[in-house]
Amino acid sequence: MKYVYAFEEGDKSQKYLLGGKGANLAEMTNLGLPVPPGFTITTEACKVYMAGHDTLPEGLMDEVAGAVSALEAKMGKRLGDVDDPLLVSVRSGAPFSMPGMMDTVLNLGLNDTSVQGLAKQTANERFAFDSYRRFVQMFGKIVLDIPGDAFEHALEALRDERGVATDPELSADDLRGLVATFQGIVRKRSGSDFPQDPAEQLRLAIEAVFKSWNGERARIYRRMEDIPDDLGTAVNVQTMAFGNKGEDSGTGVAFTRDPATGENLPYGDFLTNAQGEDVVAGIRVTEPLDAMANHFPECHEQLLGVMTLLQNHYRDMCDIEFTIEQGRLFILQTRVGKRTAVAALRMAVEMEEEGLIDKREAVLRVQPEQLDQLLHPQFDPDAKYTAITKGLNASPGAAVGQVYFTADDAEARHTEGQRVILVRPETSPDDLHGMIAAEGILTSRGGLVSHAAVVARGMGTPAVCGASELEIDLGARQFKVGDTVVREGEVISINGNTGEVVVGAVPVVTPEPTGPFGVILGWADDFRTLGVRTNADLPHDAEVARGFGAEGIGLCRTEHMFLGSRLHLVQRFILAASAEEERQVLVELATSQKEDFLGILEAMDGLPVTVRLLDPPLHEFLPDIEELVVKKAQGELDQAGQVLLNAAEHWKEANPMLGTRGVRLGILKPELYKMQVRALLEAAIERKLKGGNPIVEIMIPLSVSKAELGLAVSWVREVAESLFGAGADLGGVDYKVGTMIETPRAALVADEIADEAEFFSFGTNDLTQMTFGFSRDDIEGRFMPVYLERQLLPYNPFETIDMEGVGGLVRTAVRLGRERRPDLKLGICGEHGGDPTSVAFCHEVGLDYVSCSPYRVPIARLAAAHAALGAAGPGSTA
Amino acid sequence: MKYVYAFEEGDKSQKYLLGGKGANLAEMTNLGLPVPPGFTITTEACKVYMAGHDTLPEGLMDEVAGAVSALEAKMGKRLGDVDDPLLVSVRSGAPFSMPGMMDTVLNLGLNDTSVQGLAKQTANERFAFDSYRRFVQMFGKIVLDIPGDAFEHALEALRDERGVATDPELSADDLRGLVATFQGIVRKRSGSDFPQDPAEQLRLAIEAVFKSWNGERARIYRRMEDIPDDLGTAVNVQTMAFGNKGEDSGTGVAFTRDPATGENLPYGDFLTNAQGEDVVAGIRVTEPLDAMANHFPECHEQLLGVMTLLQNHYRDMCDIEFTIEQGRLFILQTRVGKRTAVAALRMAVEMEEEGLIDKREAVLRVQPEQLDQLLHPQFDPDAKYTAITKGLNASPGAAVGQVYFTADDAEARHTEGQRVILVRPETSPDDLHGMIAAEGILTSRGGLVSHAAVVARGMGTPAVCGASELEIDLGARQFKVGDTVVREGEVISINGNTGEVVVGAVPVVTPEPTGPFGVILGWADDFRTLGVRTNADLPHDAEVARGFGAEGIGLCRTEHMFLGSRLHLVQRFILAASAEEERQVLVELATSQKEDFLGILEAMDGLPVTVRLLDPPLHEFLPDIEELVVKKAQGELDQAGQVLLNAAEHWKEANPMLGTRGVRLGILKPELYKMQVRALLEAAIERKLKGGNPIVEIMIPLSVSKAELGLAVSWVREVAESLFGAGADLGGVDYKVGTMIETPRAALVADEIADEAEFFSFGTNDLTQMTFGFSRDDIEGRFMPVYLERQLLPYNPFETIDMEGVGGLVRTAVRLGRERRPDLKLGICGEHGGDPTSVAFCHEVGLDYVSCSPYRVPIARLAAAHAALGAAGPGSTA
Repeated sequence: MKYVYAFEEGDKSQKYLLGGKGANLAEMTNLGLPVPPGFTITTEACKVYMAGHDTLPEGLMDEVAGAVSALEAKMGKRLGDVDDPLLVSVRSGAPFSMPGMMDTVLNLGLNDTSVQGLAKQTANERFAFDSYRRFVQMFGKIVLDIPGDAFEHALEALRDERGVATDPELSADDLRGLVATFQGIVRKRSGSDFPQDPAEQLRLAIEAVFKSWNGERARIYRRMEDIPDDLGTAVNVQTMAFGNKGEDSGTGVAFTRDPATGENLPYGDFLTNAQGEDVVAGIRVTEPLDAMANHFPECHEQLLGVMTLLQNHYRDMCDIEFTIEQGRLFILQTRVGKRTAVAALRMAVEMEEEGLIDKREAVLRVQPEQLDQLLHPQFDPDAKYTAITKGLNASPGAAVGQVYFTADDAEARHTEGQRVILVRPETSPDDLHGMIAAEGILTSRGGLVSHAAVVARGMGTPAVCGASELEIDLGARQFKVGDTVVREGEVISINGNTGEVVVGAVPVVTPEPTGPFGVILGWADDFRTLGVRTNADLPHDAEVARGFGAEGIGLCRTEHMFLGSRLHLVQRFILAASAEEERQVLVELATSQKEDFLGILEAMDGLPVTVRLLDPPLHEFLPDIEELVVKKAQGELDQAGQVLLNAAEHWKEANPMLGTRGVRLGILKPELYKMQVRALLEAAIERKLKGGNPIVEIMIPLSVSKAELGLAVSWVREVAESLFGAGADLGGVDYKVGTMIETPRAALVADEIADEAEFFSFGTNDLTQMTFGFSRDDIEGRFMPVYLERQLLPYNPFETIDMEGVGGLVRTAVRLGRERRPDLKLGICGEHGGDPTSVAFCHEVGLDYVSCSPYRVPIARLAAAHAALGAAGPGSTA
Repeated sequence: MKYVYAFEEGDKSQKYLLGGKGANLAEMTNLGLPVPPGFTITTEACKVYMAGHDTLPEGLMDEVAGAVSALEAKMGKRLGDVDDPLLVSVRSGAPFSMPGMMDTVLNLGLNDTSVQGLAKQTANERFAFDSYRRFVQMFGKIVLDIPGDAFEHALEALRDERGVATDPELSADDLRGLVATFQGIVRKRSGSDFPQDPAEQLRLAIEAVFKSWNGERARIYRRMEDIPDDLGTAVNVQTMAFGNKGEDSGTGVAFTRDPATGENLPYGDFLTNAQGEDVVAGIRVTEPLDAMANHFPECHEQLLGVMTLLQNHYRDMCDIEFTIEQGRLFILQTRVGKRTAVAALRMAVEMEEEGLIDKREAVLRVQPEQLDQLLHPQFDPDAKYTAITKGLNASPGAAVGQVYFTADDAEARHTEGQRVILVRPETSPDDLHGMIAAEGILTSRGGLVSHAAVVARGMGTPAVCGASELEIDLGARQFKVGDTVVREGEVISINGNTGEVVVGAVPVVTPEPTGPFGVILGWADDFRTLGVRTNADLPHDAEVARGFGAEGIGLCRTEHMFLGSRLHLVQRFILAASAEEERQVLVELATSQKEDFLGILEAMDGLPVTVRLLDPPLHEFLPDIEELVVKKAQGELDQAGQVLLNAAEHWKEANPMLGTRGVRLGILKPELYKMQVRALLEAAIERKLKGGNPIVEIMIPLSVSKAELGLAVSWVREVAESLFGAGADLGGVDYKVGTMIETPRAALVADEIADEAEFFSFGTNDLTQMTFGFSRDDIEGRFMPVYLERQLLPYNPFETIDMEGVGGLVRTAVRLGRERRPDLKLGICGEHGGDPTSVAFCHEVGLDYVSCSPYRVPIARLAAAHAALGAAGPGSTA
């Protein structure tokens, strides 16, 4: 097997073999772009390395040696040469872009000898030793696993000693000394001398890239992005181009369109006399791309040409890294660029208008999950507030939360249920867990392509970056803006669309998406075959969802209708001493129930509304036993309290999830269920008489057997017949009776259940709980993180449906149910209904619709279109 | 379709068509026995009746009229005749014997006219009117559904009026008046006159029998005995023979062998001048069968001849109802007789010795569930106690419990967890629910074939009947024996083997079964292919089970080893502030764990011992939060208590059944699991070094995925390798690692699980909980009774495995597991392992063994033999 490909040997189709970066470098080389020569070590080599328990594949280093020789011949330079050394970069390149996740080593090939050659060639000793110290530092940190602090502290100490504030103020001699200091650190920490042999440097760097594939940061990112763990990474070895050779050099990142807004204009960051890492790390404040025209007019024009060529070639927005070495432009890499949801929508629609792509591709260009960004709350336009400062609008959406200054704190508070804003000078991949936990991210340094900004946009988390007025004091756990001091735990609001930072909580609203959003979703609706409904308990939610395109209600929970001001009625019902007393309370409840249903049926007029009869166990409507018991011990429990305590003790359950709830409750209290059915059907009749078009689906929860469901269905028919018999025009009301499939048994005997049910709605939340034996309340905070971290589960089955276990039950139920009743209507109303991967599963198993929360409806519509277009799964647009 | 068969037209093979009773009447008729002529209406007619929503099948009554004409011709009498009327009985007769469950009407054909004929023919007006009033009473109660009290009160009032104590003291005129009174009751209660037309009487009676098939009592009995609901019942119409025509008449029940002991001697009860119902109802005290030789020597001899003939013909013990009418013997019905477990064993072994049956049949003659009677506790032979009275030894075994006087009370107290003795003057089918709930039954009236005795023996519940010294005062809720008063709620003990009744609790022991018990189980072992293990946590239990024939331990729970004196250690482990502290506690725990395992491995030397690693959630080892909270509110919680409270709050779970338990606990606390494995393997090594033969199976509970199980298995291997590496002779220790299949997901992905597991043990208790979503703690007392009562479930899935749902998962797991690992060892360790129907299921799906509690081991052995002989299910010996 061939493990090493020169750039000239590949093309962009070979993403899986050469990685995304390698394939694109090959493509650009063959397009004739000014790419520094180099070669790519394949992902196959990485896989063999992993399979062999971290042993490099046989023959690999021989092939590498051959490729290096070819490169040396082409460049007329030799690695480690004392006069004119070849220097290379070593970068990872996985099949899917993983920004900031994988490690990079620059300036490889420098040693105590070749640094002299570099000094000679550039006539710049300072530059040579600065490059060398950067190499030792980077190699030490990434390849030899020495904490970066060790080098940073030495650098700081040197600055202090010299009394200077920035690195450029250090002299060549200072840097020469620093190299020696760094080599000492390497010797002390790794137990060996810094490797002088360039071939050994290269071998160690290649191994480090391979190892980093299974590093914690990479694994977390892959889990978040649903990228398979077995793809492996390629390694790109490329001739160095230096952007830090002086004021005639520079480096930058360019986007062919604006990745934040989607506007069709070149966009990017640029720094003179810098290496690429300086741009990405966000340590120095960058200049906009336009400014390059002033410094390097020819290079700027050449770059614009390259950008046009690449965008037309890839038929997509490209993200390009470039370097200018002493006035000469080099293209270091390109890839299809990441973008905000707004930008993705606008680009997709505009590229379709430009004829660059067709509608199908336009729909596929927007990731369903991305839309969540647009549906995030925004500052209420009418809200009055004063921003204490403004940073860069790095990731859209508004967030409100308590300030925490470390990723660990942010994660811990989030686990406790708090909303957190993570505030950092800048972020690094080590902060990822805190960033995932945070509602929003605020940094005082870094630009729009800094780590914080890129990751936040990818996750759809609002972020404000580079808010340079922030003085963060990590030790004191506070930040200052002028005289304003904000301490850990205080609430702030950030606006990722404007960069505003506000002390206190600003009211937030969710925008009405328009323009490209509507266009893409309209196209998506043309492609999809799966219906999309919403889970809504209130008329307002139903209206919002309908606005987002919901085609009905898949789950209207009635328990919410029993809380608040009606709680005392429910308690009276539970405490009722006689059937007559129960009946009286039910009459009162029926009146308000009917009002609820009228509102919902009106909001969804003409669309189906699935109403689930009461589900939760009765003790949920009673006060907490512990509180009552404490009161009693303190002699403060009155007679009424004692009655409630007795009832609470009576209805208390060891495992309420598996207790007296759902249809079981109905069977113990049939009049309660009959009251709900009557209220619903009366509401429907009233709507009908008023000229409305109510479509009612009555759903019995938690069934396990045909007989049990049949009994509950018989009540519905009985009530319906009594209303019909009473002369009301029930004949005109369209109603169905069905059940939730949420116990494993219901799925296993779905054929018998289908004898009684006109529709099934898969309650995949409970089905997941029972199939795994996972009580969500108990495990999400306790062992689910451990399970995901240790890969004992591939993903959280409460977020994405477990295809093997729970999915197996769904498949069984679909098959058995349809065999028995071919026109059985099938839907899903668990939270999975709004998860794109799960939506794809629902499409594949042949459900009729998914139902999700109102704000997930657009996501589900787009995901359903992707599924219909056969483009489910990660990386479909990459 | 032909619905009516004369007795001459059938034979005993037609049980499903003619019912058990009808088939046997036909058989006896064709054997030439003195059976009063009659005919049988088939079960098919009943099924058509039920299918047609209680409409008699077309043409049925025409066929019946034809059969009646033929009967009239044969007997030379006519129904309703004014001179010499034909009278018939109408009885139900289902395919399986349901004693006391179905209704019977005697003397049908009597009316205001024919009663005169009966008086003429018998020259006994008193007899004629007594027969008529009995008929009106019985017809009114059973056919017209009028409460029996109404008639009883009128009878009582008449006795009071006449100043007499018993019915025989009433005169013919009294009885004539009583008929008129009874007819008045009928008119008032039913709204119609008592039917005078015999054909109408017959039609109504036939319908009543059909309806009684779905009566509540019948349904409860069928559920208890696992008899299908769709078999229907036949109706037998038979010429009346009168045992109450005077002192030259009588009636009785005979058994060809003693149904209590199995002794090969005729056995039975006899009453002169009585109808059959008087014997069965237990209202009068009967004479033993031998006494009949004094009153009716010829009939006695003839009866003995019939008994021998029938026993040889049926090759089994027969239960025969007979009547002597004016010196002439009639056989009214026969069936294979019910028997105690002791009797069943003895009869089976002796009949095999006599050459009547072979070993196969002998094994099938004993119902596995029956053995439970033998394994029930008995009074400790060394216990000192004084019986306050002695009744009949109606059903074997000893019971201790609190006295309650109504079935409702007995059931209610039982549901609350109390042990109850139901004390009644006599029982009727209306008391069935209380009898099921009771530990023991005590009656003051009734003989060995009374309702109480028959039902108690069938259920294996200890019973003492006919304890005539008992003066029961239902109103005062107490009974007296001489001066001793026992009030509701007081504890008594009864001995169903001796008839003793004792105030207070007598210590009980369980006997060592010998003789026929051992013989039958030995034969069973030769037939069965399924292994039988036991669930045992202590060496003593293991020894008991081994004595009962257990072939290893299928489930040794280790949580019991963490309680008692070790609880403080476990609490220290939970509260440990550091890994070091945890480690120290584990060292202490390991010492005692090893001792536990040594004892168990010794008790089961040479047989496999499956040890389940710790399963329950940690909070089970902590004090009750409510108690601590109350203490705190009262200011009585010290610092240590507060620490415990904090821990209890921390580990508290909303649904512990689905929480942090099993392997999840292991993954949070791996050192705990490793300690257990180390202690177990060290114990095995020590046993081996001492010349023992330990066979160890380590079981990981509650797995859901391959990766999770794989991690736990890796710890086991790691510990084993560490011991082996340490020089101990682990090579000689036979150990396996496997898992419990107790989550639905584990069953659904059993192929992957089998990659890691060398054996599966189905934990069907938890699997049932999760498949149904039934928390056993919460539902057994609350809605399970309602579900069974209303037939929403065919049976309690915690007693007998749910074949469709849970069973479907077991089948899936067996198939997937064996596909992946052909030598996978498969067992079951839920309580179903001791339930005969479930054992048959385990045999059928191909498990290697079942494991059950020690006292169920013999039952499982016999059930496994039945399964292997293809005789599972109800009625296999009937």
